[in-house]
Amino acid sequence: MTATDPAGVVLDPTSAPAKVVLGPEDLHRSLEDPLLSAMTFLNEVTHRFPDAISFAPGRPYEGLFDPAAISGYLDAYREYLERDLGLDADRVRTAFFQYGRTNGQIHDLIARTVANDEDIHVPPGAVVVTVGAQEGMLLALRALFTGPDDVLLVSSPCYVGITGAARLLDIDFVGVTEDESGPDPSRVAEVARRVRAEGRRPRALYIVPDFANPSGVSMSVQRRRELLAIAEAEGIFVIEDNPYGFFTAEDVRTPTLKSLDTSGVVIYIGSFAKSCFPGARVGYVLADQVVRTREGGAEPLADSLAKIKSMTTVNTSALSQAAIGGLLVRAGCRLREANADTISFYRENMRLMLAELARHFPPGSGVRWNTPSGGFFVVVTVPFVADEAALERSAREFGVLWTPMSTFHLDGGGLDRLRLSCSYVEPDRLVAGVRRFAEFVSAMTTRE
Amino acid sequence: MTATDPAGVVLDPTSAPAKVVLGPEDLHRSLEDPLLSAMTFLNEVTHRFPDAISFAPGRPYEGLFDPAAISGYLDAYREYLERDLGLDADRVRTAFFQYGRTNGQIHDLIARTVANDEDIHVPPGAVVVTVGAQEGMLLALRALFTGPDDVLLVSSPCYVGITGAARLLDIDFVGVTEDESGPDPSRVAEVARRVRAEGRRPRALYIVPDFANPSGVSMSVQRRRELLAIAEAEGIFVIEDNPYGFFTAEDVRTPTLKSLDTSGVVIYIGSFAKSCFPGARVGYVLADQVVRTREGGAEPLADSLAKIKSMTTVNTSALSQAAIGGLLVRAGCRLREANADTISFYRENMRLMLAELARHFPPGSGVRWNTPSGGFFVVVTVPFVADEAALERSAREFGVLWTPMSTFHLDGGGLDRLRLSCSYVEPDRLVAGVRRFAEFVSAMTTRE
Repeated sequence: MTATDPAGVVLDPTSAPAKVVLGPEDLHRSLEDPLLSAMTFLNEVTHRFPDAISFAPGRPYEGLFDPAAISGYLDAYREYLERDLGLDADRVRTAFFQYGRTNGQIHDLIARTVANDEDIHVPPGAVVVTVGAQEGMLLALRALFTGPDDVLLVSSPCYVGITGAARLLDIDFVGVTEDESGPDPSRVAEVARRVRAEGRRPRALYIVPDFANPSGVSMSVQRRRELLAIAEAEGIFVIEDNPYGFFTAEDVRTPTLKSLDTSGVVIYIGSFAKSCFPGARVGYVLADQVVRTREGGAEPLADSLAKIKSMTTVNTSALSQAAIGGLLVRAGCRLREANADTISFYRENMRLMLAELARHFPPGSGVRWNTPSGGFFVVVTVPFVADEAALERSAREFGVLWTPMSTFHLDGGGLDRLRLSCSYVEPDRLVAGVRRFAEFVSAMTTRE
Repeated sequence: MTATDPAGVVLDPTSAPAKVVLGPEDLHRSLEDPLLSAMTFLNEVTHRFPDAISFAPGRPYEGLFDPAAISGYLDAYREYLERDLGLDADRVRTAFFQYGRTNGQIHDLIARTVANDEDIHVPPGAVVVTVGAQEGMLLALRALFTGPDDVLLVSSPCYVGITGAARLLDIDFVGVTEDESGPDPSRVAEVARRVRAEGRRPRALYIVPDFANPSGVSMSVQRRRELLAIAEAEGIFVIEDNPYGFFTAEDVRTPTLKSLDTSGVVIYIGSFAKSCFPGARVGYVLADQVVRTREGGAEPLADSLAKIKSMTTVNTSALSQAAIGGLLVRAGCRLREANADTISFYRENMRLMLAELARHFPPGSGVRWNTPSGGFFVVVTVPFVADEAALERSAREFGVLWTPMSTFHLDGGGLDRLRLSCSYVEPDRLVAGVRRFAEFVSAMTTRE
């Protein structure tokens, strides 16, 4: 939207009421969190350097999207309502235009899809359709965290969306440092016990077990089982966020934590941003834990999340749900199969990224990187400080964008690391982008 | 969505993980707030009694919606992007499918529309496009309320959306009791001073000056000016929420607080739910106050709200923005004129509601009501307790739905009052509904 959004909106002091001027101290402290501006930065850096090759945002590739297809999705959903659900014209109209059920309208299609794709079996009543995964995080945190002594555990380096949501709700968090296969379950137990020893309650662990953002690492099945056992033993919830799970380098599927969970500790957050398209802003939470009500009844935790949702967004756009619902109907609620082209695109891009890095940075170059088994992200270690100033130089002089890793580290680490996202660009741009990146690294490491 | 949502989802204990059972004490205390369940109740009561005539929810009338029109809205927006903004095919695709600008994509169209319709003049950079007005409330509260001593003032009876959002953020609020023309500005000053005398800070007043939900009352221009002077003198922000302003009983427009505001105390929350359609879930906040940054720069308060939004929903559905954007383009950014049919529908329904009440309840009947000068809501005073039990009886035995007013009163009042919404039903159903309502009242007041 660059054309409607001239970079750096200049505030015209003559048109704004002049008497009310706020300082940072007048606003909630979450606004001072560098993580918050980092996420805005991630969203908008692409707009600031429109001609640069962008390895920065974790955006999906756009080449497989077709604007003319949208009305087809809506038609497919309408046909589903009419034919499969037997809705008359008035009710179809209501489904598209009116306020809807707080928990969502396409919960049934989502329950079927996660059963097919992820072997996750929950009743449709355990699904809450959210405004992207981000709202799901906000709802889960708000429901589970009851007071200032509740602490959130997060893997570090960590996705900024979860720590940002925690800051908004004044929830404290503590990092569990990752190794090359995600957080070590025994470390999770250690941190949980340390928190408890401080007289506080470790309430939940947030984790992306598949191709984490930003590190790209994945947990082995063994680690997943260990983590679940520890979560149960320690009495902590696991908030599993899985936006990238489809995009494996090989045809090997690692089961989600939710599908392995026999004790009910996992709350699962899903997203259609990468498997369908981000513009719909549709995600979901699976929360089939049982909540006893004061009246002696029982309801799924999803209903508690929906009550909170009624105070954040009331419900998720009916139009967006119709588009995603239509996509699911067309896919026969098998989204993994429907994503065959997308999966192979990301697979090839990841292979190419790793190959091009190897070509430009031979052993001894001082540049290293990890080799994720899928997903969008590669982490590169460089022999200089990869901060926002370096990024500005990279963008301005070399026309290539990436993301500083230090943003994501809770322990002050990652200063010599950066994240390359290989999801957003065409293969030929990717090749050109790694070349530009190599020139940038060369300039940063050569004495002038 | 009744067909996909069997009333009262029964949790199958055999399919849910049995080990994790939560009690009310395990979840955030906002979930214990009766206001929260009230809002869910308002959203879902219609589903529970599908054959009843519903005067309960503040939903817009659906008869003027046409599902076939949606692709036309999307086309209009696409043409606008191509023709007016000169976007090429790739950028149009991005605008529909990709993550977008956090503050929104249709901010420019919204700034033009509020200038035309409400004489409110703000730069497009002061607009944040939100997931309905509800998210706007959440963002405004989160930005402005910095600690436990900040107190929100709300008119009482009060819209549950604002008090619910406050509870989610652990923000305390205090009521300013309304009279027949909204809250008396001198009472606002009194309450603000009382809060300050307690060592706390009255931070903002939430108000719906036009046809308030639930009371239906409106503020005079004189009161609006007084309120603005008091807000400025007391140093409190005014959060103006205006979902019903178009729907006047006569062709008389009362200026919004925002358009009268010369001191910059008003943050304006707008909604397209009633002027376009609720299923899009698109609203907006106008926040042109100046925020000084630590770096010595200045940005509109809208940018602070957008940073918070990046942690609640990331951005508002691009698809929904495209639909609303297309509607605005087609309307030439003059939504009031485009709503001529809608305005006249609600006008006629309000006239009819008041006439039917007068016909069924002659003077001396013990039933009284107010006569709003527009909007969706009439408040009826009855000679019995109008609680949820009475509502159940009304629905079950008489097939008519309404809303207990006590839900909205912060002071325990309103027990003998109920809200009738005349927005949702066809005129003939409205006439039949008031007849059923009269039978219900008769049954409640006749000794058996």
